[in-house]
Amino acid sequence: MDELLVSSQHGVTTLTLNRPEKRNALSHSLLVEIDEALDRIASDEESRVVVLAANGPAFCAGHDLKEMTGRPEEEYRELFSTCSRVMQKLRSLPQPVIGRVHALATAAGCQLAAACDLVIAADEAWFATPGVKIGLFCSTPMVPLVRSVGPKVAMEMLLTGVPISARRAYEVGLVNRVAPTEELDAIIAEYCTAILASSPLTLAIGKQAFYEQLCLSESEAYGDATDIMVQNALKDDAQEGMTAFLEKRKPEWTGT
Amino acid sequence: MDELLVSSQHGVTTLTLNRPEKRNALSHSLLVEIDEALDRIASDEESRVVVLAANGPAFCAGHDLKEMTGRPEEEYRELFSTCSRVMQKLRSLPQPVIGRVHALATAAGCQLAAACDLVIAADEAWFATPGVKIGLFCSTPMVPLVRSVGPKVAMEMLLTGVPISARRAYEVGLVNRVAPTEELDAIIAEYCTAILASSPLTLAIGKQAFYEQLCLSESEAYGDATDIMVQNALKDDAQEGMTAFLEKRKPEWTGT
Amino acid sequence: MDELLVSSQHGVTTLTLNRPEKRNALSHSLLVEIDEALDRIASDEESRVVVLAANGPAFCAGHDLKEMTGRPEEEYRELFSTCSRVMQKLRSLPQPVIGRVHALATAAGCQLAAACDLVIAADEAWFATPGVKIGLFCSTPMVPLVRSVGPKVAMEMLLTGVPISARRAYEVGLVNRVAPTEELDAIIAEYCTAILASSPLTLAIGKQAFYEQLCLSESEAYGDATDIMVQNALKDDAQEGMTAFLEKRKPEWTGT
Repeated sequence: MDELLVSSQHGVTTLTLNRPEKRNALSHSLLVEIDEALDRIASDEESRVVVLAANGPAFCAGHDLKEMTGRPEEEYRELFSTCSRVMQKLRSLPQPVIGRVHALATAAGCQLAAACDLVIAADEAWFATPGVKIGLFCSTPMVPLVRSVGPKVAMEMLLTGVPISARRAYEVGLVNRVAPTEELDAIIAEYCTAILASSPLTLAIGKQAFYEQLCLSESEAYGDATDIMVQNALKDDAQEGMTAFLEKRKPEWTGT
Repeated sequence: MDELLVSSQHGVTTLTLNRPEKRNALSHSLLVEIDEALDRIASDEESRVVVLAANGPAFCAGHDLKEMTGRPEEEYRELFSTCSRVMQKLRSLPQPVIGRVHALATAAGCQLAAACDLVIAADEAWFATPGVKIGLFCSTPMVPLVRSVGPKVAMEMLLTGVPISARRAYEVGLVNRVAPTEELDAIIAEYCTAILASSPLTLAIGKQAFYEQLCLSESEAYGDATDIMVQNALKDDAQEGMTAFLEKRKPEWTGT
Repeated sequence: MDELLVSSQHGVTTLTLNRPEKRNALSHSLLVEIDEALDRIASDEESRVVVLAANGPAFCAGHDLKEMTGRPEEEYRELFSTCSRVMQKLRSLPQPVIGRVHALATAAGCQLAAACDLVIAADEAWFATPGVKIGLFCSTPMVPLVRSVGPKVAMEMLLTGVPISARRAYEVGLVNRVAPTEELDAIIAEYCTAILASSPLTLAIGKQAFYEQLCLSESEAYGDATDIMVQNALKDDAQEGMTAFLEKRKPEWTGT
C-alpha cells in the first residue's frame, strides 16, 4: 500500500498521508515521499493549489518512534534534517498549501499542519506537542507553531503536552476555519476555487514575498515589498488584471 | 474639492480622506497631500493626537487603478515608494494616530488602517487585501497586516481576497474596538481624552521606542528599552508625573 | 517581615511577593531578593517548577515611586538594569515559571506577569501599563507585553494606560487560563503535575531552545532546532522516554 497518495484534479493536487494503522507517523520513507512529491508539484504548471490530507483515525502522530530508539547520531540528523526540509518546502512551494486536518495532529504532525499556508480543521481535530512526555521536546514543531499561536499558548502546549481543540486553535491563529467533518471538503473546495481564480504567477510572487519579509523589521520589509510591488505591477497578469477590472470583465491570465 | 481635509480642535488633528466618489482611492496626489500633512503635524506642538478618517461609502479602496495601467517602471516606483513612505510616516510621527474605519478598507486602504497605532472600526466595516484578484498581490499591505493579525489570518486574506468583518478584525488584533457607527466619534473622543491627559514628550518617547524594539530579539529590546527608561525618568515630565502621583494631585506637563 | 517568601514542596518552588501594604511594589531591594532567589533555584536540582505569586490586594504595582523621584542617572540605571535582569532571568531559568496573578498587575508588575512562561489569572485580575500617566512610558514592560499580545493591543494599553481584564488578556495571549480565585491553586497544581511528570533535562533543553529561536527567521530557527532535536534524542531521558512509550510503561528519568 502506498504511504502517500497523490491525486490531481482541475488544478488541485491532493497529498494524502496513507499509513492509517500507524496514525500516519512520519517515517523517514514517508518524509522522503512527501519531499519528492513537493519537488514534482513545484515544477508542475497544471498544479495550482495543494491540499494536504490524511486517512484514518488520526491526521498525523509525528515521527515514527519505532525508528527512533538506539540510533547513531547520523541517523537522527538525517531524519530531523529531512523533516525540517519537508516542512520548509511547504513554505517555498510556489503553490498555496491547505492543510485538511480531520483529527488529532501531534508533534511533527502538529508541525505539518502549522507549516501549511492555511489550515482547515474538523470540529473533532486536536493539536498537541507532547514530545516532553517522552523526553524529546518538540523543538522543531515549535518553530512554525509559536509563529502562529504566539508564545504563551505555544509554551503551554510544549511544557504540558496537553492538546488544544480545533476551536481553540482557531481562536489563537493556528487554524483558519473549523467545521463539521462532513463539511471539510466543501469548505476546502471554496478556498481552492478562490485561489484557482487568480494568476498562478501572482500567487507565487506573493507567497514568496510573504515568508521572506516575515522576519524582517517593518522598514526592511517595506523596502523589499515595495520592490516586489513594482516588479509585480509590470507583469502581463497585473496589467491584464487591472485592465479587466476597469473594463468590468473577467481577466485572462497568461502566467507571465 | 480638497482631496484631504485637515482640521484641528483642542489638540486633535483630524485628517479626512475626501474622494468619496472614488471610494477615497489613494491617488498619487492624495498620497502626497497626506505625506505633507504628516510633516506639518510632526512639527506642530499644538497637535497632540491624529485621527485618520474618511468620507463617503468606503474608508479607502486602495490605489487608484486608473493611474496604474500601462505605466513605465519609474512611475510605479514613485507611486509605491510614496505610499510606503506615507505608511511608515504614520509610525514615525511623534503623535499617536487613531484610524477611524467606518466602512470597507481594501488593499492599500486596509494597509492604511493597519499602519495606524490604534484602529476603531464600525460594526459594518470590512477589511480586505484583494490584490490577488487583479494580478497584483498586496505585498506592501501585508507588511503591517501580518504584523497585526498573524500569518494564518493574513495569508487567508492575501490568497483569497475575501474580506474579514470588523468583529473578526478585533478578534485577531487588527482593530482595538468595534462599535455602531453612531458611537465611533464618542469612543474616539475617549481615546483622545486619555492621550491628551499625558505628556506629549512621554508619548513621543514611548511611541518611538515601541516601533524600534518590535523587530529586535527580546534581549536586545531590553537593552534599548532600559536605556530609554533611564533617559525618560530624568525628564522634567517624569519627575513631575511621579511627584504629582505621590502628592495625589494632577501633573502639569511642560513637555521637557 | 520578609519582602519575598520562598517555599518549596514536592519540587514546586513558590516565590511570593510579600509587601502587601505597598501593593508589592518592586523596590530595588525586592528586585535583588528575586534575582538572588532565581540564582539559587537555577542550580537547585530539587526545584522543578516555579510559581510566582503575591500576597495582598494587588499582584504587583510596578516600581516603587518613592524610590524614583529626584535621583541621579546612576540610580535609575541601577534600578532599571536590575529589573530588566530579573525579568530576563525568568526566561533563562531552566525551570518553567508559572505566574499566579490573583489581582491587578501594573507597569513592571504587568511585565513580571508577561515575563513568566505561563500565566494563570483570577477572574478579577487586571493588567495595565499606565506609566504614561505619570510621565514615564512603560518602555521595558512593553518588551514582553507586545511579544505576547501583539502590537495593537499593546499600543492601546501603553498609550491610554487603561487596564484590560483577565478575560481580555486570555483572548489576546497574555494569559493561559482564567478562573475564579478559589480555583487558582488547583489549576496551578494541575500544570505543576504535568510539568513534574516530565524530565527536567528535557524541559530545560526545550525552554532554552524556545526563547533562543523566537527572534530568528524561520529558516534560522529550523537550523538551530534541528540540531537541538538531534542532541536531545541522544540523551538518556529521550531514549528512556521513547522506549517506555513503546513498552507502554511509565518512564524513569535520570536527568541525563
